[in-house]
Amino acid sequence: MDPTDPAAILAGLIRCPSVTPQEGGALALLEALLARQDFEVARPVFSETGTEPVENLFARLGDDGPHLVFAGHTDVVPPGDLAAWSHGPFAASIAGGEMIGRGAVDMKGGIAAFAAATARYVRKHAAPRGQLSFLITGDEEGPAVNGTVKLLDWARERGERFDACLVGEPTNPEALGDMIKIGRRGSLSCEVRVAGLQGHVAYPHLADNPVRSAVQIAEALLATPLDGGTEVFQPSNLEITAIETGNPSVNVIGARCSVFFNVRFNDLWTVETLKAELAERIAAGAASERLRPARPAAAYDLVWRDRPSEAFSTKGEAGTKGAALTDALVAAIAEKTGRAPQLSTSGGTSDARFIKDHCPVIEFGLVGKTMHMSNERVALSDLEGLTEIYEAFIARWFAANA
Amino acid sequence: MDPTDPAAILAGLIRCPSVTPQEGGALALLEALLARQDFEVARPVFSETGTEPVENLFARLGDDGPHLVFAGHTDVVPPGDLAAWSHGPFAASIAGGEMIGRGAVDMKGGIAAFAAATARYVRKHAAPRGQLSFLITGDEEGPAVNGTVKLLDWARERGERFDACLVGEPTNPEALGDMIKIGRRGSLSCEVRVAGLQGHVAYPHLADNPVRSAVQIAEALLATPLDGGTEVFQPSNLEITAIETGNPSVNVIGARCSVFFNVRFNDLWTVETLKAELAERIAAGAASERLRPARPAAAYDLVWRDRPSEAFSTKGEAGTKGAALTDALVAAIAEKTGRAPQLSTSGGTSDARFIKDHCPVIEFGLVGKTMHMSNERVALSDLEGLTEIYEAFIARWFAANA
Ligand SMILES: [Zn+2]
Ligand SMILES: [Zn+2]
Repeated sequence: MDPTDPAAILAGLIRCPSVTPQEGGALALLEALLARQDFEVARPVFSETGTEPVENLFARLGDDGPHLVFAGHTDVVPPGDLAAWSHGPFAASIAGGEMIGRGAVDMKGGIAAFAAATARYVRKHAAPRGQLSFLITGDEEGPAVNGTVKLLDWARERGERFDACLVGEPTNPEALGDMIKIGRRGSLSCEVRVAGLQGHVAYPHLADNPVRSAVQIAEALLATPLDGGTEVFQPSNLEITAIETGNPSVNVIGARCSVFFNVRFNDLWTVETLKAELAERIAAGAASERLRPARPAAAYDLVWRDRPSEAFSTKGEAGTKGAALTDALVAAIAEKTGRAPQLSTSGGTSDARFIKDHCPVIEFGLVGKTMHMSNERVALSDLEGLTEIYEAFIARWFAANA
Repeated sequence: MDPTDPAAILAGLIRCPSVTPQEGGALALLEALLARQDFEVARPVFSETGTEPVENLFARLGDDGPHLVFAGHTDVVPPGDLAAWSHGPFAASIAGGEMIGRGAVDMKGGIAAFAAATARYVRKHAAPRGQLSFLITGDEEGPAVNGTVKLLDWARERGERFDACLVGEPTNPEALGDMIKIGRRGSLSCEVRVAGLQGHVAYPHLADNPVRSAVQIAEALLATPLDGGTEVFQPSNLEITAIETGNPSVNVIGARCSVFFNVRFNDLWTVETLKAELAERIAAGAASERLRPARPAAAYDLVWRDRPSEAFSTKGEAGTKGAALTDALVAAIAEKTGRAPQLSTSGGTSDARFIKDHCPVIEFGLVGKTMHMSNERVALSDLEGLTEIYEAFIARWFAANA
């Protein structure tokens, strides 16, 4: 296998049926490929009670100096209905200039491009003055318990320190160079359990209808925008995902009513400042007498859900590591495609939310249109284009951090 | 059994264990009692697929002229936990001047008082110049399918025409003479099924959150009072009994959300005018852009529940049958107790809502405090007092309608 040919590497990876949590031979292929290029490779396996053990890979070239890490995953989602595929999902067939197969863009293609870019760079410049690593998990599409989080802890315990990270997830909506993800919004969820006093609808003065309080709280949460967004973040947004009363009787005022909501928020907030703001709004809604004239404030409990995540972005003052990382990637994309990518923080969460606690992190990969679908596929020209962008990025990043 | 002694009659009725739908001997006792006073008695049995047959009673004294009908039920709710009773629930024991037993106030006591009042009246004045009837069901506390509604239809088909009805349900909160029910509010229930567009909370612009629409609709329903009440009715009141989304996921915007509500309304509305007003409010809530900026109106279905009931009251212009009925009862109460009863339309619905389609109807009986509870009981002085009020009422009503 030519280590500078991303199509050859990708075909090899697709043919490994690495549906989460199966390793499928994908990490073994990558281990052999990187070891031949003098990477030091480790294959830690993580497990936890109640979960399946998962294989992972960490490979490093170089022993000290500025440390750039490429992060990704070799596991893929199941192919689904095989009849919906024009070619076998693990065959890596080529048709019309595209390679077809599960993981083609999410994200074996990204890994193949970065591996080929590394091989080309080393061939031209010798090993970089610094450290270049692969941090690859086999548990991104699954429960994500035995993957990136544990691999980062494991690396830190071994003394690894990273200066910048590129995640190779597919980030482009339509064409290569469309979009870089320079951060992600935070996420916070809560259930407001409103207490009422049950009673007959004919005697509302003897009851306290918790739905009235819940509607006031919903109003207080939704009525005023949280913020207007920032240069790199869209406005924070709150959605009430459910109001549930659990009262089947039309003659009865219920005893309780819950309001469930989720906030996707930008870096004008932290989880703590946002909780404080929301708690204040909820208290005002519960105390309002608008729909509950002459009533004392409604009683309620706030149940914050586990694992909120903070907003983050690499957008910082000029001269910071995050700004340098973004600049190197934007310049590489401009050099190879002539395009100025959108610097986005939109969409859901990703493993970048764990990596950002270790170093600045940015995301850029293939065009995501066919990810998780049948006939997932990548244009061979995109695969070559991404390899060239990655190679230019590696050169620029090490030059800037020399 | 002395037909003028309400305590003797009540003891006899309590000893008939007539838990719905069992007749228990109660209607047979009443039949014998009334037949001895020259009432013409019928005992129609009604049934319907899926329900148990129920015995009922209709008894009339007199063949033509003004027709006053007393309505009530001999069936009782189950005694519940026997250990909670100080005396047997069907023993009619007397202690501390009170008779204890299931049905003592709801409403075998009312029937006993009216039967005794009739006997006393006839003894003093001979038969009234007109018609005096008992319309007694055995299915008021149960499904109420084979009771009053069918009995009224049955009587109408036999050519019976009523000019006024007194229902003997317990109406007094604390003491005899506290309160007459001169009408009841109407009741109307609805489910508003709001349609949304499901999606991920991170991409709210690709979804349409039905909870936002539901909150706007709830607001529109609750924000403005329906009316300020009338001389005899409290203000109409709307309660949202439930908002149900049925969405367990905090990451997902749901596809639908239902708002359930019930309105208890006064005679400023009919079911039809109220439906029109509510439909307008709901449409305004669905179309609002307050919590759904720049969105088209939400789609929804209105599912009105079966069997709404209209508001009604006997309060009318002077000279009407309803006004004469109220006047006769108020005067009788004043004569026997010196008190001016509150003319109320509060509380839930009762069988009066069916009777009001046949003639003016009013409700007055014992003190309701112990109804449906263990140790249900009536003060013997109240039983005698109610008998005297009923007798004075009969005399005044026939005098006014002569
Ligand atoms: Zn992925
Ligand atoms: Zn009753």
